[in-house]
Amino acid sequence: MKRSGIISLLTDFGTRDGYVAAIKAVILEINPLAHLIDMSHDIEPQDVRAGAFLLSAHCKFFPAGSVHLAVIDPGVGTDRRLVALQAGDQIYVGPDNGLLDFCIELGIKQAVEITNQALWHQPVSMTFHGRDILAPVASHLSLGKPFQEIGTHIGIERRLPVVSCKVSREEIFGQVVYVDRFGNLITNISSRMLRELGGGEHLEVSLDGKNAGTLRSTYASVPAGSTVAVVGGFDRLEIALNGGDACSAFGAGVGASVAVQKKS
Amino acid sequence: MKRSGIISLLTDFGTRDGYVAAIKAVILEINPLAHLIDMSHDIEPQDVRAGAFLLSAHCKFFPAGSVHLAVIDPGVGTDRRLVALQAGDQIYVGPDNGLLDFCIELGIKQAVEITNQALWHQPVSMTFHGRDILAPVASHLSLGKPFQEIGTHIGIERRLPVVSCKVSREEIFGQVVYVDRFGNLITNISSRMLRELGGGEHLEVSLDGKNAGTLRSTYASVPAGSTVAVVGGFDRLEIALNGGDACSAFGAGVGASVAVQKKS
Amino acid sequence: MKRSGIISLLTDFGTRDGYVAAIKAVILEINPLAHLIDMSHDIEPQDVRAGAFLLSAHCKFFPAGSVHLAVIDPGVGTDRRLVALQAGDQIYVGPDNGLLDFCIELGIKQAVEITNQALWHQPVSMTFHGRDILAPVASHLSLGKPFQEIGTHIGIERRLPVVSCKVSREEIFGQVVYVDRFGNLITNISSRMLRELGGGEHLEVSLDGKNAGTLRSTYASVPAGSTVAVVGGFDRLEIALNGGDACSAFGAGVGASVAVQKKS
Repeated sequence: MKRSGIISLLTDFGTRDGYVAAIKAVILEINPLAHLIDMSHDIEPQDVRAGAFLLSAHCKFFPAGSVHLAVIDPGVGTDRRLVALQAGDQIYVGPDNGLLDFCIELGIKQAVEITNQALWHQPVSMTFHGRDILAPVASHLSLGKPFQEIGTHIGIERRLPVVSCKVSREEIFGQVVYVDRFGNLITNISSRMLRELGGGEHLEVSLDGKNAGTLRSTYASVPAGSTVAVVGGFDRLEIALNGGDACSAFGAGVGASVAVQKKS
Repeated sequence: MKRSGIISLLTDFGTRDGYVAAIKAVILEINPLAHLIDMSHDIEPQDVRAGAFLLSAHCKFFPAGSVHLAVIDPGVGTDRRLVALQAGDQIYVGPDNGLLDFCIELGIKQAVEITNQALWHQPVSMTFHGRDILAPVASHLSLGKPFQEIGTHIGIERRLPVVSCKVSREEIFGQVVYVDRFGNLITNISSRMLRELGGGEHLEVSLDGKNAGTLRSTYASVPAGSTVAVVGGFDRLEIALNGGDACSAFGAGVGASVAVQKKS
Repeated sequence: MKRSGIISLLTDFGTRDGYVAAIKAVILEINPLAHLIDMSHDIEPQDVRAGAFLLSAHCKFFPAGSVHLAVIDPGVGTDRRLVALQAGDQIYVGPDNGLLDFCIELGIKQAVEITNQALWHQPVSMTFHGRDILAPVASHLSLGKPFQEIGTHIGIERRLPVVSCKVSREEIFGQVVYVDRFGNLITNISSRMLRELGGGEHLEVSLDGKNAGTLRSTYASVPAGSTVAVVGGFDRLEIALNGGDACSAFGAGVGASVAVQKKS
C-alpha cells in the first residue's frame, strides 16, 4: 500500500500545553515531509468512546495510505498493549483499549503489538507514550516501514461492548452516542437503517420518549429554535435544534434513547 | 493568476468534533500538496458577520493566489447559493449569505455559482456542504482549475446591510463590530478615517457616551488596568484595557456606539 | 547550521480571532515551504512565565535548525527589545522580556536585536509586532538568512527571577510552576534531582504540607481518583489525580510549595 504522507492526530491532550506540538516534533524528526492533520485534541480527558466515534466517522474521508495516530490512553504506563494495524487501506496506531475497535468492522489486514524499541524516542517517559512510542512509530509507518519491523503480529479483539440498535420492520431503537459542539445529539442509527425502514418524511423520531418530529432533510427544514431530526454529517440520525443546542434543550446526552417509527 | 497552494479555512465548526479534519481530508485527496491554514473555527455558531469581519481583515496578508474556504452556513441544505469568486488576487469559496460581501469592495474579477456536481464529494450530505461541496471545489481551485469548470458565472450582490460610520470634519461616529478573545472592542473606524481627522493625541474617544481617553499609539501607553483607545492589529480603532478585558469592564459588545472627536 | 524548515508558534493570541493565521500568512509569503507547528496559542494572556515554561520544555523535541516564534508581549509598542538568537542548534525569535531566558542555559551561540526594518512587513502595526516584525524575521531565519542581516549583535541577560529548588541530601523543596489542562500540577523538580535523591518508591512527596504519597512510575499506579506523584511528560515531578484534576482537588496552583523527602 502506497503511503499518502498524511498523519492525522486524535488525542485528549488539548492544545494549550504543547503536548501535541512535542508529538509533531518527534514525527517530523523522522519524516520531515509528513502532512499533519489535527483530527481533534479536545475530547474529554480519557473519553475513549468519543475518540473512537470521531475517528471511525472521519477516517473514511482520508486518502488511502494515511496514518491515524490516536492517543487517548488512561492506562499509559500499565501493561495495556500499544498496537499498529492496517484496516481497509489506512493505518491506525494507538493503545489497544477500545479506541480502535471499529477497525475490526473495516477489516483488519495486519496488526502488530508495538515492541521494537529501536524505533522509539529515548528516553521513554512512563507517562507520555504518545510522544515517545506512538509518534515515532506512526512516522515510520508513514514512510512505508513494514509492520513486521514495528513489532510482533497479533490478533485484535474488541475491548468495549458494542452499542447496537434494535431494528425491526416497523421501528429502530438506538441511542445517542456523541454530542457535538453545537449540542447536536448524534445517534448510532445509520442512514442505511433509515432507508431500509422507508426513509423520508414517513418516519417519526422520539428522544427519551419525547416527540422529535418526522425525519427531515436539513436543519433549516424547521423554523429557528425548533427540534429537527436529520441525517447529519456523520451519516447518522441526529437530533438538533435549528440554530440552537438540543443537548441543553432536551437535557439529554450520550446514552439517551432514540426511537424511529413508521408513521401509522 | 498563479496559485499559492495555500487554502485558509474559516468555519464555525469548532475543533472538537473533527468536522474540520474531514474537510481537510477531502481537500488533500484532490490536492495532496495544499498548504492548509486555519483562519478560525471558533466563531460563534452561525455568526456570519463575525466570520466576514475576520476573513476581510486577515485575507490581505495572504500571498496572491491563495484560496479562502469559508463555511458559516446556517442555510445549509436550503436553496441559498454556494459561490466561488476571485476578488483582487485571491479566491473565496463559501455560501452566498453575506460572508463574502466584503469581496465586493476588493473588486470581484469573476464569480460563479457552484453547480458542477462532478467535482463534489459523493454522496453529498444534506447538512455538510462544507465538506462535500465547498472543500473539493476549493481544492480544485487551488490547483488552478478555471472558474468556468466550477459552475455558472453570476453577479455577486451584497446580502447584509453595511454597518457604516458617520464621518464629519470634526467627528466620527462608528460602532463596535467585533470583540476579540482579550475583550478588546474592535470598531468599524479605520486608521485612515482617524488620520483624516487629524490622528494622534488630538482625538478624544468615547464608548456608549463614556470617556475612553485620547487616541494612543499602543496598549502600554497607559497604566495596567486603564482604558486605552488604539489602532490595533486589525488597522481599526479599538478600545482596550491594558492587560485587561474591556468588553467585561464596559459591559459593551458588538453594536456599542463609539465616537471620536477633535479635542477642543 | 542547516535549517529544518520548521517554525513553531507560541502565542497568547488564542485561535478564535485569526491573529495567528495572519502571522502564518506573513511567514508563508516569505517562505512558502515553511512547516508551521502550533506550540500553543491558549496561554493566559500575557503569562510570559507559562509560555517560557512550555517552550523550554518542548523545544528539545524539535529537529536541529528549527525556528521558534514566541509572541507573549505585554510591552508591544514600548521600547522593550525584540530579539533573535541561536541557542543550542535551534533558533528563537521573540520579545526580550523573559520569554527566552531559558535559552541562556541552553547556551546562546549568537543573538541580535531585531533592527533591520527592510525585512519587516510594512506598514508595521504599533500593537501587532508578532505579525509585522517577528513573523517575517522568523521566516527569513527559517530560510537561512544570517543573523547579522536581522540586526545588531547583543548580549542576552536574564529578565525574570529564577524559580529554583532547594536541594539537600535528604530532601528537595520546590514549587508548582505550571498547571496543565488536566489539572496536573507540574513542578520545577526535575527527574535528575529525584534520581540524585534516590528515586523510586523511597521518596515521599507533599504539596503545601499535605501528603501526596510516594513517587510512582505512572498515573495508573494508584486507584482512580487518588493522588499520584510521578515524573510526567515534562520530565518534572508532577502531582496528579489519576483520572481527575489535582489543581481543583488540592486548591493549589502555580507557586504552591512541594517537598520531596527520603522515607525514614
